[in-house]
Amino acid sequence: MITQTFTESHRTQGRNDCVDITGMVQQAVGRAKIRNGIGTAFVTGSTASVTTIEYEPELVRDLKEAVRRLFPEGLRYAHHEKAGDDNGFSHLRASFIGPSLSIPIVDGHLQLGTWQQVVLIDSDTHPRTRAYLIHVMGE
Amino acid sequence: MITQTFTESHRTQGRNDCVDITGMVQQAVGRAKIRNGIGTAFVTGSTASVTTIEYEPELVRDLKEAVRRLFPEGLRYAHHEKAGDDNGFSHLRASFIGPSLSIPIVDGHLQLGTWQQVVLIDSDTHPRTRAYLIHVMGE
Amino acid sequence: MITQTFTESHRTQGRNDCVDITGMVQQAVGRAKIRNGIGTAFVTGSTASVTTIEYEPELVRDLKEAVRRLFPEGLRYAHHEKAGDDNGFSHLRASFIGPSLSIPIVDGHLQLGTWQQVVLIDSDTHPRTRAYLIHVMGE
Repeated sequence: MITQTFTESHRTQGRNDCVDITGMVQQAVGRAKIRNGIGTAFVTGSTASVTTIEYEPELVRDLKEAVRRLFPEGLRYAHHEKAGDDNGFSHLRASFIGPSLSIPIVDGHLQLGTWQQVVLIDSDTHPRTRAYLIHVMGE
Repeated sequence: MITQTFTESHRTQGRNDCVDITGMVQQAVGRAKIRNGIGTAFVTGSTASVTTIEYEPELVRDLKEAVRRLFPEGLRYAHHEKAGDDNGFSHLRASFIGPSLSIPIVDGHLQLGTWQQVVLIDSDTHPRTRAYLIHVMGE
Repeated sequence: MITQTFTESHRTQGRNDCVDITGMVQQAVGRAKIRNGIGTAFVTGSTASVTTIEYEPELVRDLKEAVRRLFPEGLRYAHHEKAGDDNGFSHLRASFIGPSLSIPIVDGHLQLGTWQQVVLIDSDTHPRTRAYLIHVMGE
């Protein structure tokens, strides 16, 4: 049984920048030589999230719009007033979508649908180098 | 240590059809003879999701209503205009709820609450045979 | 390879009470003597959820406010009318945020960000002793 974690990073633009990390997750499966098992993507930090989506530019635009509509920037956030920060909505977006995702691996391949990509969504208010982890386990 | 993935499918009606797959997940635990470990349910495709809920018909109705309220069909979706598709809201519902879920297994049993069932929610706009995976790992 | 599940509980106040369980998850990693692997937090029951957030009191207040705004108590819930219950919104909040979360473990440490804590959110309408599970697997 193999257990291995890979640390990756990506330069993101913030503002719900949505990055396709499917290739990195599949690469981790290959590097760890897992044939059957499970892979988990996890993003470090509390203003980013991980999910799957059909990575199509128009739909990615719809996703960003929905995220902004459901957690508007213009509301009052206690996090801004007391903690002096500007990204209360970024945190809430991340907490709702969630930081982790697990995908079965069969015959060395992530069992994603054809139009299902693993994405990292950076909801913070500024560009940054965002670290994320890929853990694979199996045999 | 055992690692095993089972592929299942269910004929769904779309439109947030909510299917109780708890029995299938528990069955996978039994078939793989896992006593202690973890089980993961993962849905293939980007218009469906997996979560837990008290599988009670009225609450399932409330869930569908909430999903429609938060991601309305009547908004403009770039995915419709450019990609010519009709299910932008289906994708967003799926991405927000998320495609995977992991449950500890103790003494051969999924550690769910009495009124906590594992459900597959198909948010696509039409009926289809929906594939999903159950991965179990442990000893 | 080690696989171990710990059952914990916490006295919560309900009403989206948000409890930092990071220390308990890290403690489970230590007790199971996992150096490299993965840890999963899972909450038993269908009116509570698990996610990560910067555990800062003002932001926690913002989280509760967002949860109430997106799933208002004042809407009509079929779960109330037919099942005679009062917590339809509690269930929906829990199902959307989700009951499980997985975090890679490297060199005996959960790979969380500095301002990223694991939280249990109890959205039920009354105080209770809430059970949750921590599963760790690795070597």
